[in-house]
Amino acid sequence: MAETSKLKSGPSKGPERLAVVRGEQSSPAPYLRLPTGMRDHAPAAASARRRIVDGLLATFERGGFARVVTPAFEYEEVLALGLGDAARAATFRFVEPSSGEVVALRPDITPQIARLIATRYRDELGPVRLCYEGTVVRLERGARGQRELMQAGVELAGVAGADGDVEAIALAVDALAAVGLRRPTIDLGHLGLAREVLSSLALPDAALGEARRCIAKHDGAGLSEVLKQAGGARGAIEFARLLPELSGAPRVLDDARSQAPNGGIKRALAELAAIVAVLDSRKLDARLHVDLGEVRGFDYYTGVRFQAFVPGAASAVLQGGRYDDLLARYGRPSPAVGFAVDVDAVVGALESSAGAAPASKRKPRGRNKS
Amino acid sequence: MAETSKLKSGPSKGPERLAVVRGEQSSPAPYLRLPTGMRDHAPAAASARRRIVDGLLATFERGGFARVVTPAFEYEEVLALGLGDAARAATFRFVEPSSGEVVALRPDITPQIARLIATRYRDELGPVRLCYEGTVVRLERGARGQRELMQAGVELAGVAGADGDVEAIALAVDALAAVGLRRPTIDLGHLGLAREVLSSLALPDAALGEARRCIAKHDGAGLSEVLKQAGGARGAIEFARLLPELSGAPRVLDDARSQAPNGGIKRALAELAAIVAVLDSRKLDARLHVDLGEVRGFDYYTGVRFQAFVPGAASAVLQGGRYDDLLARYGRPSPAVGFAVDVDAVVGALESSAGAAPASKRKPRGRNKS
Repeated sequence: MAETSKLKSGPSKGPERLAVVRGEQSSPAPYLRLPTGMRDHAPAAASARRRIVDGLLATFERGGFARVVTPAFEYEEVLALGLGDAARAATFRFVEPSSGEVVALRPDITPQIARLIATRYRDELGPVRLCYEGTVVRLERGARGQRELMQAGVELAGVAGADGDVEAIALAVDALAAVGLRRPTIDLGHLGLAREVLSSLALPDAALGEARRCIAKHDGAGLSEVLKQAGGARGAIEFARLLPELSGAPRVLDDARSQAPNGGIKRALAELAAIVAVLDSRKLDARLHVDLGEVRGFDYYTGVRFQAFVPGAASAVLQGGRYDDLLARYGRPSPAVGFAVDVDAVVGALESSAGAAPASKRKPRGRNKS
Repeated sequence: MAETSKLKSGPSKGPERLAVVRGEQSSPAPYLRLPTGMRDHAPAAASARRRIVDGLLATFERGGFARVVTPAFEYEEVLALGLGDAARAATFRFVEPSSGEVVALRPDITPQIARLIATRYRDELGPVRLCYEGTVVRLERGARGQRELMQAGVELAGVAGADGDVEAIALAVDALAAVGLRRPTIDLGHLGLAREVLSSLALPDAALGEARRCIAKHDGAGLSEVLKQAGGARGAIEFARLLPELSGAPRVLDDARSQAPNGGIKRALAELAAIVAVLDSRKLDARLHVDLGEVRGFDYYTGVRFQAFVPGAASAVLQGGRYDDLLARYGRPSPAVGFAVDVDAVVGALESSAGAAPASKRKPRGRNKS
């Protein structure tokens, strides 16, 4: 009776260790540890998470977004279609034993929703509005040292330009308000603009990467140094030099437009200005902050990119943007915009504000540029 | 600008395939498939799942069970302490790249809760009541061909014997009622009894396995054949021969007690009878069914084992039992009992009853013995 005797003597790998544990029961067994970045959530945190996810999903559903669930892992080759280099490098992969094929734990749910829209919603003529919640895992340790992150988010396919962007940003603000985070700072950037500026510099690849890093860090001096190698049009180089400074209240858009060197950059600035104007007219309960030096999220974003910051959370509680090329990678070209809420960051912000002065009295925290 | 050019030409692995997909957009790309057993859940199913999980957790919390969240994977060696041979064989393992150590996707959440009780709740003197929801993944293809299963369950540590068993079973019935599954059939077995009977047969290991299979399949003829090799006491062998028949309304316990060959078996039968008596006195809204031939779940169950069946679901919608040895494997000996609800089986049962005659008019479906 193999199983019974195994039960009595302990699992095959562990009998010596079990003996040790049984022999020293006064303190927790040191080997009962978790992998780096993985954690248990005790009752208070677990309940807070669930309440927040419920509040977010209820808001998404009221906004017309239908909830879907995608699997924890899928074929690496399918998932990778929708991942950029950084996300692909952060992906846990393993060989699926029954097929011998490589599968990957999702580091991001957006590519899965794109796949779903490209398959189940392939023949849908109008806009597709989907929402989700779930955990993602990433090799890199993110904010709070975590590698398993709980996210809740939406994807809106089929609504191009400012209409879709405004719908997504307004829903983001509503959803945060629904879980108790009122008047967030919404940081607006534009990946199309950053890409346009960088590509007009005629810089070698290595220098281009360095230029991006300098812009992301708001390092004007470092950027000026890199730009000495630039061979593009003088106006584009001068505009690039300004990027680290073009950050602040939406009026920086006016400064930027007066100095925009070409049509592509002007169009991106006009798009941002249109979004700001509509959000203003809707009296969105948020502070708008424009950062034209926003160069993160190159992986799939193509247009506006937005993040929400609140007091008590060091990193963004919500990130999103427009990704008009992603669905085409899955064979169903369509404009799309979406965002994901970092649920644990929201838990942290709420805990912090519960133990501190009213949120409205406090200054928003700085952003961690990477 | 490496990332931008990658965006334009498609991911490194896929440009030829992308070209193919873009060339034939009339049908979904055939390679956008999911690994065997993994699936997406469309809005109706996703909402139903969420509603059910919410209803279950609300019932668990009203019953005094605090919700915790455990990670999707952890060190294989830690998880395996709480897994039997079958569950270990069904576990997805991979090497965690940053540490080079083997981690495992959880095939079962109970060992994680046991680890949590052995660490965070180590110094708790009274009973510990925890509940959870989450997905597990298993290599074997389970009911409905799924390998990623959504579960919601409870674990009650520190309440020994019938008191704990009755609390768990009554909560199970309440939880199912809360999500619309009234008057389930509760199938009661006793792993301690089966183990006691089997170990008293003096059968070689291979024949013992065969005897278990025959009992599980209610195959009396096959069992008689195997028992010819048995060298144990005549009374024990005769009692073993009866096991496939000792299944039905709780009065089979009386038949069994009259023929019980030894004290261990009598004690197990008395335990079951005590549980049935208390459940009867509480007017539990369920049909009780006793199956003394219940020999599945050898992995960690030690005493009563229960399953809930409802019309419209071919397999159990809920499984649980007493596992008094499991916590000791994590260094904190304590009696414990718990159960997990198969959320997708509940979704299926509710869908089936919504499209059929009222549940009370239908006969419960047969059980799939493995």
